[in-house]
Amino acid sequence: MSLVEQALSCVRAISPYQPGKPITELAREMGIPVERIVKLASNENPLGMSPKARLAVATAIGGVERYPDQFELIAKVAARCAVASNQVVLGNGSNDVLDMIARVFLAAGRSAIFAQHAFAVYPLATQSTGAELICVPAKDFGHDLDAMLAAIRPDTRIVWIANPNNPTGNFLPYAEVRAFLQRVPTDVVVVLDEAYNEYIPPEARVDTAAWISEFPNLVVCRTLSKIYGLAGLRIGYALASPVVADLMNRVRQPFNVNNLALAGALAALDDDEFLQASYDLNRRGMAQLVAALEKLGLTYIPSYGNFVTFKAGDGAAVNQKLLQQGVIVRPIGGYGMPEWLRVTIGTEAENARFIEALEKAL
Amino acid sequence: MSLVEQALSCVRAISPYQPGKPITELAREMGIPVERIVKLASNENPLGMSPKARLAVATAIGGVERYPDQFELIAKVAARCAVASNQVVLGNGSNDVLDMIARVFLAAGRSAIFAQHAFAVYPLATQSTGAELICVPAKDFGHDLDAMLAAIRPDTRIVWIANPNNPTGNFLPYAEVRAFLQRVPTDVVVVLDEAYNEYIPPEARVDTAAWISEFPNLVVCRTLSKIYGLAGLRIGYALASPVVADLMNRVRQPFNVNNLALAGALAALDDDEFLQASYDLNRRGMAQLVAALEKLGLTYIPSYGNFVTFKAGDGAAVNQKLLQQGVIVRPIGGYGMPEWLRVTIGTEAENARFIEALEKAL
Repeated sequence: MSLVEQALSCVRAISPYQPGKPITELAREMGIPVERIVKLASNENPLGMSPKARLAVATAIGGVERYPDQFELIAKVAARCAVASNQVVLGNGSNDVLDMIARVFLAAGRSAIFAQHAFAVYPLATQSTGAELICVPAKDFGHDLDAMLAAIRPDTRIVWIANPNNPTGNFLPYAEVRAFLQRVPTDVVVVLDEAYNEYIPPEARVDTAAWISEFPNLVVCRTLSKIYGLAGLRIGYALASPVVADLMNRVRQPFNVNNLALAGALAALDDDEFLQASYDLNRRGMAQLVAALEKLGLTYIPSYGNFVTFKAGDGAAVNQKLLQQGVIVRPIGGYGMPEWLRVTIGTEAENARFIEALEKAL
Repeated sequence: MSLVEQALSCVRAISPYQPGKPITELAREMGIPVERIVKLASNENPLGMSPKARLAVATAIGGVERYPDQFELIAKVAARCAVASNQVVLGNGSNDVLDMIARVFLAAGRSAIFAQHAFAVYPLATQSTGAELICVPAKDFGHDLDAMLAAIRPDTRIVWIANPNNPTGNFLPYAEVRAFLQRVPTDVVVVLDEAYNEYIPPEARVDTAAWISEFPNLVVCRTLSKIYGLAGLRIGYALASPVVADLMNRVRQPFNVNNLALAGALAALDDDEFLQASYDLNRRGMAQLVAALEKLGLTYIPSYGNFVTFKAGDGAAVNQKLLQQGVIVRPIGGYGMPEWLRVTIGTEAENARFIEALEKAL
């Protein structure tokens, strides 16, 4: 047999993830100066990172010849989330913890359930294990929890749920999620991916970490890539029952989180002022963008994240016209939504640049 | 069934990797001030990182809110190694690329071969896929390539080779490795892990990347964690034939390498002066340690790495006495060598502290 034929068929079938176009790539491709490009494609924080985190990272540079030690950050996350240290698993971004969960519970002959239009890493993590992927049609672009419950088969080991969902921004009220947990078999893992948790209005937010003692099959995943502005440092975490966390640690690469991410996260988690400023900026920016979309008569999905997804018509064509003007948003044809584009909430000026470019593009 | 019973049995059977004891951990445990602790346990560069890399990392902090883009570093590695860009796969440390190779080619019903006393990540990466692990007895603590060749079965998909090997320091002359490659079936992947490559005397070193066109089943892995001093940043890479690299990219987490590692590596790879200084320091330190071990009448394994492994008798007891004096080395009972300890070559002063502590411990 050829070498390629010896690779696992499930791996050969994977289509790699399509990331948002980096600023440098657009600059290379179209000859647009970097400083004239606005990137609103990857749900990054337009304020950058917390100044306290920046200082902590700069200070930690002196020790990068040493392998990282996760002790301190695990303790901090545990304390903040009111769980024990042996319930925290750190990841190289939350992508990494999602991948660990898949590797613990999935293999050929098993299945995992996810919702249509849900985050692309769920199918990728599932497929790489050889498990079967069950895609449940969306309800108003969000998760249809009743249908997902009905889709559970005897071989189903994981249900992936994003709340809020990316790339659609849908939000599932927590009462529905809780009711779902009460009905799911206790030996099926429910992954609740809360990457955008901190953008949910405080009055609608619930402390899901507190549910884990009641539902040991619940794994809550969070990231510091979004509101904390540390996407480039790569740090996320999972909160799980001690037995599940222990299993995840068995497939975790021992030094999976770098020193500077550990140092940055430690400081970032303490900077409530930066968090509030980021939240407020997002709220104002959302109002600015939504008003503009409404003025243009465009349909959009009400979003609980730091982005909004709108119907552009021919998404690829509009995207191309935005790129020519130096504005990068995210086409989501790969999510089965070729008519839609997802735009990240930026600063007021970035949003204005996008609105201006969109008007010209349409 | 219980939740734990639903986890893959191969994952439940894994014993997690035992890292070198962090300085902070020893300080916590024994109340020894951090500045009085010498860590020679993880084969880190005692000179730290290249000053050029440090500057590059500090400069890159400004952009950590953005997801990383690997384009530039891939091009740099490809140019330095004289391969095409589609032959380079970056990893979150070389651990990550080793893991990717396992995930592409291994699963239950397949097997992988590694040598007794070889690096712990090979069995871990193999076991996590459910593949069978074939351990071939060592020859003088190193790889017995003839026996490894003879151990290949029809279901064998990967042979793991470390050269030099960690934790023993053994070196396989390249002519032997090449002869091995000529005899291995072309549909079995040979992973040549060269984490310590840059410590091999230049006259003994061979450009194995140039062999890939002849042996498309060869994957060469390297890291910037050792002589480049970037262990805490997490960056390594694999060089492979385009088809194998493409398969690895399908299981690679899309943002697996952080921004600061990319920036640091770009600068580090260009700093030949720092590389030479690190090499020279290692050579002098090796002479210093070997002379001390000989003076103490201790057996050691001649090493081609930045560490030396010696027979301490009761390794655990001697290790404990070293820890009490604030000196951290690596016990390697987990590698089937409970009588031996591995010590990293430090600065002249660190080596002297170790020698003094060892004399007292014996």
